[in-house]
Amino acid sequence: MDKIKVGIVGYGNLGRGVESSIRQNADMELVAVFTRRQPDSLSSAVPMVHISEIDSFIGKIDVMILCGGSATDLPEQGPSIASMFHTVDSFDRHAKINEYYDSVHAAAAKSGHASVISTGWDPGLFSLNRLLAEVVLPEGKEYTFWGKGVSQGHSDAIRRIRGVQNAVQYTIPHEKAVNQVRNGEDPALSARDKHLRQCFVVAGEGEDLARIENEIVTMPDYFADYETTVEFISAEQLQREHAAMPHGGLVLRSGKTGKESKQIIEFGLKLDSNPEFTGSVLVAYARAINRFAKEGFVGAKSVFDIPFSYLSPKSPEQLRKELL
Amino acid sequence: MDKIKVGIVGYGNLGRGVESSIRQNADMELVAVFTRRQPDSLSSAVPMVHISEIDSFIGKIDVMILCGGSATDLPEQGPSIASMFHTVDSFDRHAKINEYYDSVHAAAAKSGHASVISTGWDPGLFSLNRLLAEVVLPEGKEYTFWGKGVSQGHSDAIRRIRGVQNAVQYTIPHEKAVNQVRNGEDPALSARDKHLRQCFVVAGEGEDLARIENEIVTMPDYFADYETTVEFISAEQLQREHAAMPHGGLVLRSGKTGKESKQIIEFGLKLDSNPEFTGSVLVAYARAINRFAKEGFVGAKSVFDIPFSYLSPKSPEQLRKELL
Repeated sequence: MDKIKVGIVGYGNLGRGVESSIRQNADMELVAVFTRRQPDSLSSAVPMVHISEIDSFIGKIDVMILCGGSATDLPEQGPSIASMFHTVDSFDRHAKINEYYDSVHAAAAKSGHASVISTGWDPGLFSLNRLLAEVVLPEGKEYTFWGKGVSQGHSDAIRRIRGVQNAVQYTIPHEKAVNQVRNGEDPALSARDKHLRQCFVVAGEGEDLARIENEIVTMPDYFADYETTVEFISAEQLQREHAAMPHGGLVLRSGKTGKESKQIIEFGLKLDSNPEFTGSVLVAYARAINRFAKEGFVGAKSVFDIPFSYLSPKSPEQLRKELL
Repeated sequence: MDKIKVGIVGYGNLGRGVESSIRQNADMELVAVFTRRQPDSLSSAVPMVHISEIDSFIGKIDVMILCGGSATDLPEQGPSIASMFHTVDSFDRHAKINEYYDSVHAAAAKSGHASVISTGWDPGLFSLNRLLAEVVLPEGKEYTFWGKGVSQGHSDAIRRIRGVQNAVQYTIPHEKAVNQVRNGEDPALSARDKHLRQCFVVAGEGEDLARIENEIVTMPDYFADYETTVEFISAEQLQREHAAMPHGGLVLRSGKTGKESKQIIEFGLKLDSNPEFTGSVLVAYARAINRFAKEGFVGAKSVFDIPFSYLSPKSPEQLRKELL
């Protein structure tokens, strides 16, 4: 069987995660990584190509996996690359998803390509579980918890405080809230009830730690509405203990059927490496969209439109036998 | 919008679960329940019809939901009803699934109908999660735990012991084993390590309880290989505390990505009523197969072949906006 020829656009954490996932999938082959940086400056076992030369790979790559950011990269790259290749991405700005879908769909449909948008785990696997739980338990209540994981935005906010050299902020689901949902209590939960914020901060020599801590815990929007803990540590300790990118979370739905039966559906992830896991999801969806493209599908899809059998290299018979 | 006209075949616990689920779905309408018993003998708000008259409903019902057992009912009813109607079922004999699929597919394809087999939660939602976790974490290990829930087969085995009047057996996952998997320890687990068996037994007046207990815990296949607890209770207590049909379980996959990143995916159910939950899943798949049939699909599918968007009455735009 011919391998699926994959290209990666963007070589940050997510791009590297996709690269390592492709190595775990024998039916996939990484052809090239496309980057805006000087390709020579990056070390990789695969060819690094400047993004300006991407069109010279038309016909040589089956699926492009877009690993740029959702703020500025994807709104431009999504449609423009979908006009040359089949694509997969992890666009994650919830409020803009239909606008983004329309732009990718138009470009793919016009040029005869197939794209799947907003894969990964949220949006992605969590979205699938929200949908599944809603259709099975239409009378119910859904809760999504994130973490334990690093919030880049909150870490950045701490770093902007005077006297702070570095910081890492973890978002952590409140165990009490999670347990209330698991017990079927259907609690009404505020932001403060759902998550707590744990901050590890490296302060400059001789800084007033009490002032820094106070500026963190009272910061509007970011921390003031949450239970927040602050611990000052050394730059070495931060590097040693908080350089990894763990994440995870839970999607819970608690519903009722019949007269009074409580039914609870829970989906959870505990991830040592957020970008490697997200990359693995993108690779599975690359397989799916490649198959849809071979069948003649043209346009854009979301994870909701893709049967799970398309994610696997196994035949339908084998899937029914081994996994049903 | 026209409602989806549904028929139920078989009016045991599952059939009643489907009936109550249809009441929660505004786009569905229950037309009739088909039974082998005397229809007059059953109380229901909907027409009860003898199964011998099912062919007089051709054209009046969009989807038949088959609620018979997998041992003898479905192998016969599945193909025969698929030759008259679109169908959904919960066939659950793992070893026979492809054989059953082939028979339903042949009948549906020949007569121009659409069927989805083996829905519910295992097979069904658990199968979907096994597949999803395998494609995302190809280098990993999968664990399925069942319970806490009643095992009908094990309860029956206890009832066959001399001096036992009634019994209920719960299968319960070993917390220690579940936690080992959740911690990413990838344990090798025997049957005994994964589940324990909890028995509530009503013994006849003056019976030798020690003998009964010994016969239970040493029973080959059923109990000898497990940690088993036996508690003797009164008939009244059994009826009061153990008449419900709770169930549930967990599908866990622990895998590695990149060099050493541990990634854990968990899907769990905690169900007060197994038949009502299973019925709710069947109803969602009835919506999906009705839509496939309207699009012209002919033949049989499994849950693996059905995108989640087909399970929902909402439009693709609405799903992307609300749930992606």
